[in-house]
This record gives sequence, structure tokens and C-alpha cells, in this order.
Amino acid sequence: MNEVSRAALGRLPMYLRYLKDVQTENISATKIAEELGLGEVQVRKDLAAASGKGRPKIGYETKALIERLEVCLGQKNHCRAILAGAGKLGRALLDYEGFSDYGLEIAAAFDCDDAVGTSEAGKPIYPLEKMRDFCRENGIKIGIITVPKEAAQEVCDLMTENGITAIWSFAPINLKVPKGVALRQENLALSLAHLNQQI
Amino acid sequence: MNEVSRAALGRLPMYLRYLKDVQTENISATKIAEELGLGEVQVRKDLAAASGKGRPKIGYETKALIERLEVCLGQKNHCRAILAGAGKLGRALLDYEGFSDYGLEIAAAFDCDDAVGTSEAGKPIYPLEKMRDFCRENGIKIGIITVPKEAAQEVCDLMTENGITAIWSFAPINLKVPKGVALRQENLALSLAHLNQQI
Repeated sequence: MNEVSRAALGRLPMYLRYLKDVQTENISATKIAEELGLGEVQVRKDLAAASGKGRPKIGYETKALIERLEVCLGQKNHCRAILAGAGKLGRALLDYEGFSDYGLEIAAAFDCDDAVGTSEAGKPIYPLEKMRDFCRENGIKIGIITVPKEAAQEVCDLMTENGITAIWSFAPINLKVPKGVALRQENLALSLAHLNQQI
Repeated sequence: MNEVSRAALGRLPMYLRYLKDVQTENISATKIAEELGLGEVQVRKDLAAASGKGRPKIGYETKALIERLEVCLGQKNHCRAILAGAGKLGRALLDYEGFSDYGLEIAAAFDCDDAVGTSEAGKPIYPLEKMRDFCRENGIKIGIITVPKEAAQEVCDLMTENGITAIWSFAPINLKVPKGVALRQENLALSLAHLNQQI
């Protein structure tokens, strides 16, 4: 699969919801654009990136297009992540339902002993010592870090040492990861500060 | 003040923490870069954007540079935001301490009646009907949206009608704002999905 841009990826669930309601065997990018109130050029580009070009005058076979968008969104290769740090933000992410649109699930959280138990939605929160075995046994590839910044690098190292190849961190500190590990660092305070500058 | 880039803004707290420990009257960008393990060109650019150029051979007057970075980070013009939607994510943001680095504070949250009370850290959560008066009386300019997507546009309209000129939304829906209102839309599921594509 080609890498679909972040912006396009954001629109795919909308296309998918619409396509699932379509009754016709074929559908054109023009029609989709019209129905969703989007620019035709954009829809054409998004679908080409996700699924290749439609056939002239005919467009896409609806069923096949749905299938390919689902693959592209990862809904066919269900992917499980783990999370370290079951504080408020950690728990909010742990129980957030929107990840399933993209075939993602946070399988479990890890924290120090006194936070162990289950989340409101019933997700397990295990002691940090169990992370190593859990990652290896379940082939976890994505780790989410919501621990305080003092603990973040240590947790990050623990994750990458146990097979995790993508880290999503909310700790306000620059993490170092081995080559080949994808890293996305959120800085919520910075996002708000940057918005404040634009007022 | 010129608009400082998001990346530079992210480094200013680090410069500031270092500068507050400096004992000398003057400090050069070279020295700061060395001490913090950053590239000299980058530090020079960041400081120029935030505070103008240093003097040749002398650099910056430490005290004045601290002052200007604080202004740039908004620490001198304390800015208060409000938040709508006191669910898990809302409460996590409400009590998040990192905003103060940038002179930002979430003054209060608003939600429907049964969520009213105080957060764990003691921040007030008022009924939604009070938002209008609170914004006007306190000259609030920033609104954070953590309500479910069905309610997001309505809350957004309420905010912009009452003097808010910058919206930071976590609702997974495209909001429409009047001209002149800054809008930043976070999509947490999309961030994770995009990271997943990079594995």
C-alpha cells in the first residue's frame, strides 16, 4: 500500500460511511464529491491514493472500493497498542472509542502497582513489570506513553526493547528512540500556546 | 511580537530554564547551544525570532533575554481559557499542569448539569448555561471543545458568539467557525492511525 497522506486518511472514514449506504454497483468520484459536498479533485486524489484510479465513465465498483478503503484504514488488519501511564489522560485514551474507525485498539494499560485494575470501560491495567511479556506474547507494535516526563524515557526504552516499533508520546520531553522506530510526540501545552499566538 | 514558529516555541521553555540558572551578566547563543546540546544555527534563529539578534562578541544580556522569552511564552500576559465537556479527556486537560509553562490556564469547564462540581485539582465545572456570562465577564478568548461530536458545532457557535476567538477542538468532526476565529482540530484517532502506517 502507498502511504496515504494524513489529511486523506482523515477523510476515508467519511467516504466509507457513505459508500456503505450506496445501492448502486458502481460509483464515480464525481458522485461521491457531490454527495459529501467536497471538491471533486480532492476526492479523486484521495481515492487514487487509497485504491488506484477509477475506470473512465464508470468509476469504481462499490463493493471493491469499500474493501480497499477498509484495508487502507487498517480495519482488516486489526492492530493492538498498549499504553503506559493510567492517569487521567491515559484512561481517557484507553477508553476512547474513535480508534476502532482505524482498526486500532488499545489492548491494555500498564502502571505502577497502586493503579492496577480495570478502566471504566473494562480495559485491563496491569503492573508495569508485565509489559515485557504482554508485548512479546501479543506481538504489540505500538506503544503510547502517558507517564510523567521523569519516567518517559525509561518506559520508552522498555517498549522498544520488547518489539514496539512505533511510539506515541504525550510526555513533555524529547524522547530518543533507536533507528527504525517511528516516534510521534504530542505536546498539548504547545498546541494551545501556538493557538494563543494566532489570536 | 513576531509569530514564533511552533517548533521554536517548543524550545523556548528549555532556554528559559537554562537561562534562569546562568550566573553571568551576558550569554551568547553559542554558549546556550553548547550547554543544551543543540545546533548553534537553530539557537541563533530561535532567539532572533523571540528576542532579536544578540550583540556581536557579547551576545545577550541574560536578564533582558529571560524577560523577553517570558513575554514571548505568554507568561507575562496570563491567558485564561475555558473548556466545554468535562468527560475523561476534558478533565485530563482541565487538570493538566503543563499549560502554565506558556502562561495559559483553563479557568473553568462547562458541562450539562449532572457533571457540575469540581475537578480533582479543584477547578470549577459549571452548567453550560453559565458559559455565556463567564466568557463575557472574564474576557475569555480561548475555548477548548471536548464534548461528543454531536454537540460540538453547537458549543463552538456558543463560544464564538460570546467573544472567543480561538477554538481548540478534540471532537472528531469538522467545525465551521466565523472568519477571524483561529481553529485547531485535533484528531487523536487519526494521529495514531498515521503512526500505524509508518511502522
